[in-house]
Amino acid sequence: MVEECDIEVRVRYCEADPMGYLHHSQYFVFMEMARTELLLRNGMRYRDCEKQGVFFVVVKAEIRYKSPARYDDSLRIHVRIARMTRARIEHEYHVYKDGRIIAEAATVLGCVGRDGRVQEIPESLRDDQPPGNT
Amino acid sequence: MVEECDIEVRVRYCEADPMGYLHHSQYFVFMEMARTELLLRNGMRYRDCEKQGVFFVVVKAEIRYKSPARYDDSLRIHVRIARMTRARIEHEYHVYKDGRIIAEAATVLGCVGRDGRVQEIPESLRDDQPPGNT
Amino acid sequence: MVEECDIEVRVRYCEADPMGYLHHSQYFVFMEMARTELLLRNGMRYRDCEKQGVFFVVVKAEIRYKSPARYDDSLRIHVRIARMTRARIEHEYHVYKDGRIIAEAATVLGCVGRDGRVQEIPESLRDDQPPGNT
Amino acid sequence: MVEECDIEVRVRYCEADPMGYLHHSQYFVFMEMARTELLLRNGMRYRDCEKQGVFFVVVKAEIRYKSPARYDDSLRIHVRIARMTRARIEHEYHVYKDGRIIAEAATVLGCVGRDGRVQEIPESLRDDQPPGNT
Repeated sequence: MVEECDIEVRVRYCEADPMGYLHHSQYFVFMEMARTELLLRNGMRYRDCEKQGVFFVVVKAEIRYKSPARYDDSLRIHVRIARMTRARIEHEYHVYKDGRIIAEAATVLGCVGRDGRVQEIPESLRDDQPPGNT
Repeated sequence: MVEECDIEVRVRYCEADPMGYLHHSQYFVFMEMARTELLLRNGMRYRDCEKQGVFFVVVKAEIRYKSPARYDDSLRIHVRIARMTRARIEHEYHVYKDGRIIAEAATVLGCVGRDGRVQEIPESLRDDQPPGNT
Repeated sequence: MVEECDIEVRVRYCEADPMGYLHHSQYFVFMEMARTELLLRNGMRYRDCEKQGVFFVVVKAEIRYKSPARYDDSLRIHVRIARMTRARIEHEYHVYKDGRIIAEAATVLGCVGRDGRVQEIPESLRDDQPPGNT
Repeated sequence: MVEECDIEVRVRYCEADPMGYLHHSQYFVFMEMARTELLLRNGMRYRDCEKQGVFFVVVKAEIRYKSPARYDDSLRIHVRIARMTRARIEHEYHVYKDGRIIAEAATVLGCVGRDGRVQEIPESLRDDQPPGNT
């Protein structure tokens, strides 16, 4: 199972605020894109998950902003699966600009069905099954 | 049938760009809010429309920006139904700041079903039925 | 000093995602609006702060999502100043839908100058000055 | 002078609305990104323009939506300079999905200074100077 990956994003004009800084809410969008990419590297497209009735919702998030990003800056988002249980995934993130960490974050996602109720993460997305048990 | 109305919106921090101006794409969000309000004054909530399988999609839009809006500005959006046919609604908009028009726009919406196919606007949303024919 | 307040917001169509839920990043926008309102009740408009070279940047944030909000839902955001030091303000938030808490959050803001460097929060925004010392 | 170019964008989760469609306001963001890329291919970064006191504001826009885009769709935005005068640039756009045009648009940008007043487009960004006159 691929447990970490990086994406590159460039800050769009409308994502920067009157102070000229990338708006703090936007980091969560970039982190979501990084999670999606990580899922893809594990052979799943999130939109296919949804078609199969598997949804992930953010249950908890925390972030520390160390220094700002600005319009047109190129950022690298590193995401890593820190922990996975039957119905939850914990990710950790580092946001880099010019090789320097500008933000650190963590999220907890819960797996839910179309009705919003908690359900188990499908085995195909978990790596905790015993070898030979795929 | 109520054919026009106004809404007030205040420009949010993240809606203004590094130039300090309300981003031009955001006017379309405000215009959508004005349409929703107009629908509501005619006794329909858009989310109920969707539950009934009645969706409106923007088919065409045009806008002229006359002067900018900035963070924290209070804007008034006036919307008016200019024309309604069996499957389309044309709206006209004026955006005011301190009583002065800062933008003028027009949209054409098409009525579609859950599958995205064109369908007739339900009679309850049209005013072209003969009197006594509700 | 006014230390807490509430704002009401209605979820816009474009703020809800394909799952039909208010996107998790959007809560931070609503929390910012609540902070701005709290500042206003204390006699300051944030845009005037900026004109005077006083900026507030989010240094840290955390949030727990308990249940989702949907398009057109009316939400109440309650914000409270939990702690204020020379250069930082800590806020706590509760997001309510139909009287029930759907999210809880906390942020730490730092006061910076136009150059992005940490500076003291102006006395007029603090309540820790001794009486008669305004 | 490079007069046209393409960019590729992938529709983000939060850019799609409850209907599952890319929100109509978001096309303007993608068109802005395409303009920025075109500028870059002509040797200018827009953020450097701004540092030099050269700003471009959207004066007029129009768009026709032919068919929807959805979350995770990959779109190609083609932009072309249709006309340039002393203080205005007209661009035309085609948005493609799987090789098919899903939207057509046009914008008029005006060149303004830091004070928002109309100014001439700097010669370095125009191609109307006689040969050998750079």
